[in-house]
Amino acid sequence: MSRLLLLGAGRSASSLIHYLLQHAPTEGWQLTVADVNPAHLAPVLAAHTEYARAVPFDMQREELLDELVAQADIVISMLPALFHLPVARACVRHGRHLVTASYVSEEIRLLDAEAQAADVLILMECGLDPGLDHMSAMQALADIRARGGRLTAFRSYCGGLLAPDSEGDNPWRYKFTWNPRNVVLAGQSTAKYLENGHPRFIPYQQLFARPELLTVPGYGQFEGYANRDSLSYRAPYGLDAVPTMLRGTLRRPGYCAAWQALVRLGLTDDSVHLGNAATMTWAQLLESYLPVVEGSKSLPLQLAEYLGLEADGAEMQRLTWLGLFTTTPVGLADATPAQLLERLLTTKWALREDDHDMIVMQHLFDFEVNGAHFRRTSSLVVLGDDARHTAMAKTVGLPVAMAVRRLARGQVAERGVIIPTQASLYEPILAELALHYDIRFTEHEVSLEPAAEAKV
Amino acid sequence: MSRLLLLGAGRSASSLIHYLLQHAPTEGWQLTVADVNPAHLAPVLAAHTEYARAVPFDMQREELLDELVAQADIVISMLPALFHLPVARACVRHGRHLVTASYVSEEIRLLDAEAQAADVLILMECGLDPGLDHMSAMQALADIRARGGRLTAFRSYCGGLLAPDSEGDNPWRYKFTWNPRNVVLAGQSTAKYLENGHPRFIPYQQLFARPELLTVPGYGQFEGYANRDSLSYRAPYGLDAVPTMLRGTLRRPGYCAAWQALVRLGLTDDSVHLGNAATMTWAQLLESYLPVVEGSKSLPLQLAEYLGLEADGAEMQRLTWLGLFTTTPVGLADATPAQLLERLLTTKWALREDDHDMIVMQHLFDFEVNGAHFRRTSSLVVLGDDARHTAMAKTVGLPVAMAVRRLARGQVAERGVIIPTQASLYEPILAELALHYDIRFTEHEVSLEPAAEAKV
Repeated sequence: MSRLLLLGAGRSASSLIHYLLQHAPTEGWQLTVADVNPAHLAPVLAAHTEYARAVPFDMQREELLDELVAQADIVISMLPALFHLPVARACVRHGRHLVTASYVSEEIRLLDAEAQAADVLILMECGLDPGLDHMSAMQALADIRARGGRLTAFRSYCGGLLAPDSEGDNPWRYKFTWNPRNVVLAGQSTAKYLENGHPRFIPYQQLFARPELLTVPGYGQFEGYANRDSLSYRAPYGLDAVPTMLRGTLRRPGYCAAWQALVRLGLTDDSVHLGNAATMTWAQLLESYLPVVEGSKSLPLQLAEYLGLEADGAEMQRLTWLGLFTTTPVGLADATPAQLLERLLTTKWALREDDHDMIVMQHLFDFEVNGAHFRRTSSLVVLGDDARHTAMAKTVGLPVAMAVRRLARGQVAERGVIIPTQASLYEPILAELALHYDIRFTEHEVSLEPAAEAKV
Repeated sequence: MSRLLLLGAGRSASSLIHYLLQHAPTEGWQLTVADVNPAHLAPVLAAHTEYARAVPFDMQREELLDELVAQADIVISMLPALFHLPVARACVRHGRHLVTASYVSEEIRLLDAEAQAADVLILMECGLDPGLDHMSAMQALADIRARGGRLTAFRSYCGGLLAPDSEGDNPWRYKFTWNPRNVVLAGQSTAKYLENGHPRFIPYQQLFARPELLTVPGYGQFEGYANRDSLSYRAPYGLDAVPTMLRGTLRRPGYCAAWQALVRLGLTDDSVHLGNAATMTWAQLLESYLPVVEGSKSLPLQLAEYLGLEADGAEMQRLTWLGLFTTTPVGLADATPAQLLERLLTTKWALREDDHDMIVMQHLFDFEVNGAHFRRTSSLVVLGDDARHTAMAKTVGLPVAMAVRRLARGQVAERGVIIPTQASLYEPILAELALHYDIRFTEHEVSLEPAAEAKV
């Protein structure tokens, strides 16, 4: 019997909990779900009370964390990332394994030796991005290496978007399926990547003005903007010598240019409180950002002129759709521009009950075998089942759950702080995702020599 | 006899020290100058050893601070602003007065009641900006009020620049006379001001693209960009109801447009370390920021095209003059863009021994008396004497020194945390600056009705 402790049962944990409950009887698991608000778990766990219980949990109560961790064999943390360090420390202290979908922080990396000494596995970055991106990239890279291929470029993009049937009349073709604040503040630092052996930098001021265009078969076009740091995975992927490496985020075409208008307006700044009243309207706020002009030009025309946009162009249509030129109150007093924008977008970009989300991931591998050059494209599209089992919840939660199953079975020998870049970890998880959930990458390979193309 | 303690004797303290030494014999002062590196003070104090001494000082040694403060009657702090809180606390603890040229921080403001209870004066913002700006603005405002005037707009600008005889062939017409890091990072937040009763916001992305043009009689034109927060002095100035209020920073025309190019390039970002080698050249760094292009266009041409600048225009001339397109090494490994830019500018914008700096301050007061509208312009220009007694050192240090003299004489009755907005404080200081240092504002008043103008 294995005792599993899940810390945090928010929206993105639904598919994870479903998997754990489904397998608990056959795997002999006792599951404890600890959440700030365990009441919402009652209907979910109702049919599973023999092997599953919910308990109230609060990170402020350190002794409770210790007690819960001590009573478990494997801890799964779906808490906000900042809580992972105390959880990891408690796991090392009590000799318990930990699995999360979050980035390895510098502090957690420093626990590696201690975890190894305590015979503890701390498996991080085992969700979607980070998670599935590592697993699928490593699998493809292993295949390319096995063919004697030498990688010359690796580009990898991921985005949490809307399924085509839910894009409706939303010109942004985007709604929030993940932390809205992170979306509003995305890219507020210089992005770093590598191209032909040279470092490349894109500052925030230019990031959304310079997206790349990508095509995913069957799903049309996307644009990708560079992530903050594309270089940190060179070593973990064994790509220290690759001359081109870029990781990016996907949006639908037109999103970036319209977002760039919001950036240039100043509405994504989170560093200053405006001292505004909550009753200030969006039109008044916009006006406050524009130079004072003579005459009676309309606000949208003033804004289009200020930013050099076409008055009825795609960017202005998207800004208008958001309600920026209306008398809707901004609704928050003395807020930062980013807080006001987040509040507006949270209403405009809210997923409806009948909406379906969509995860898109695409890797582009350029490589050379015996002097011949190829490009392999691996694309993944996952659609949400419904408002509960979203594509996001599935792709974040299932890899975590599958790793936990293998760990509980004693099939994971690694110890210390790791991410899923070893074949022994990713192969069975990718196989299970494909077999049971139809979550699989489509591979497409072309020769980079003229007029020769082959599908794999 | 008064015992004076000066903490920090950096470059900007030269005129302050000169004043204190000059008046020490007649005023009966004993002066202790405490500095990290007291050796450089030996020649300065050599002729004054009867009443002046230098001692080594280190903010890390708290007991030393306590000892020095306990032995003084009045403490003057010219330390970096972050050290003022512990100094102020020590002053309250020992019942000693404190005078500084730095902004009142929230923490220091909270010491007000305690300082009053201890019969201690903590006089802050008593240098140039903040300092002389408050004093001169309050004096003019008092005059306007005495005439029955109602203020409708207050705009105030200040800049530390180069005297015309030192601008030479430097197309920026600027060198560092103050903290270089603050110049590089200036404006990296949304600027807030008030115009016709409405709040106005300018984000960093637009700040240097929208300067105002000003004229100072005898010194030509300047451009002013808005400071971060123009509104915080409405209450201290008694201007809660003024519909237009703006505080800004002065540069010579063309500076802002060229600086905007550096901002748009991304070279002022301080949030990311580039992972670069110190041997990377400036041309290579610039290239890393540009999109990859086909063909053999020169780097300056690529950059001009990227930013939409004229290839031989004023902005490109300034960027070229900085050496951005040369093979000069950036000189710092794994630095932020802002650190690299600061390093480059520190060589290009270094004051030479024979350079003279210049302080320019200008207030614009719009007011109404009995239905008639006027604009009063108060302008101050201070030129540096030499590399030691710079205009910056004089205008920062002398108001502090003069406040200390009055305090030592028992002529300052105020206690608690204050800034020099009371006539009893600013009148004698402004009079002494004018009489003995020829540091005086030129007033100019025009009717805002057509075709009526009067000089005052």
